[in-house]
Amino acid sequence: MEFPSKLIEEAVNQVSKLPGIGKKTALRLVLHLIRERPENTFALTDALNKLRSQIRYCKSCHNISDSEVCSICTSHLRERSIVCVVEDSRDVMAIENTAQYRGLYHVLGGVISPINGIGPSELNIESLVGRVANNGSEIREVILALSPTMEGDTTAFYINKRIRDYSVKVSTIARGVPVGGDLEFTDEVTLGRSILGRTQFT
Amino acid sequence: MEFPSKLIEEAVNQVSKLPGIGKKTALRLVLHLIRERPENTFALTDALNKLRSQIRYCKSCHNISDSEVCSICTSHLRERSIVCVVEDSRDVMAIENTAQYRGLYHVLGGVISPINGIGPSELNIESLVGRVANNGSEIREVILALSPTMEGDTTAFYINKRIRDYSVKVSTIARGVPVGGDLEFTDEVTLGRSILGRTQFT
Repeated sequence: MEFPSKLIEEAVNQVSKLPGIGKKTALRLVLHLIRERPENTFALTDALNKLRSQIRYCKSCHNISDSEVCSICTSHLRERSIVCVVEDSRDVMAIENTAQYRGLYHVLGGVISPINGIGPSELNIESLVGRVANNGSEIREVILALSPTMEGDTTAFYINKRIRDYSVKVSTIARGVPVGGDLEFTDEVTLGRSILGRTQFT
Repeated sequence: MEFPSKLIEEAVNQVSKLPGIGKKTALRLVLHLIRERPENTFALTDALNKLRSQIRYCKSCHNISDSEVCSICTSHLRERSIVCVVEDSRDVMAIENTAQYRGLYHVLGGVISPINGIGPSELNIESLVGRVANNGSEIREVILALSPTMEGDTTAFYINKRIRDYSVKVSTIARGVPVGGDLEFTDEVTLGRSILGRTQFT
């Protein structure tokens, strides 16, 4: 595609680096910004610049945070005896949106994946062990809420191995048929797990 | 959706103002920027800021330009006797990509649309008449390449009325069945036009 202006070309190149945005979409977005008032563009770039330069990670749970310790870790309304271990901040948001969990979190920052060169030392596992092992720790349960993939399972096994010697219950989120899903179209592994993990009918 | 950080929230709000990008996509893009190196975000915002503050419009054809007169208007390789009238810069890019046109352009900046309060005076029509009427003008043909909508047709009629008294040929791009389209599924108006506008078989 030929552009009438180097400025457009550079902007389109930069915008199309974002995941899921191709050159055509980037051009549409860029032309939209030109049509709009300049303040709108500056508000957007300002928000992104601020975000990228000021974003921090909670020193306790490693979740995205505005301050040294995040709002969940400092909240007095959360149960401090349960820690939910997740892969990244998006999972925290997803679980928060369910409104079914009132404990704390621990964000690993990924899962163990030898193919991608990610070992346990690249993840926030040491600090999780530290949180559990800490003498004054109130933690009684660690919920492993990792993706049901090979990498997620490997990470769960590794974490369990590291913390099972402390007096802490280790659980994992239920695997089964999704709510609203059709039994007939559920894959056999999931369906098998849902039978193995059956619960008392209430 | 609840966000773990005000910075994230503000960035998501700003990004989701872009057309076709909702909160979920915006969050995905924002989290992508956080994971990437800060320089990537700064390169993106820098390109957008530069674009929005430095972009200009060619004083002759009103196309997007880096300089006072755009690269097409200044090019010695273009035929200066033909002017193609289009709605916006995207149409210029679309026609340029066909590589079938080597004349000049005139970007109206929209079409006449009383419903949206856009009259002839909001568009770059006066300057088109000026270009055609100019004594030293080499322009022999004006091609109206406007959208085949009521607004586009209205605009074409208006422009024709304004310039037909000058010794200039006014033409409009062909309306007919799209290349690769199926005759059977072409709407009757288009098919009707394609019969009225039939050309000599070569």
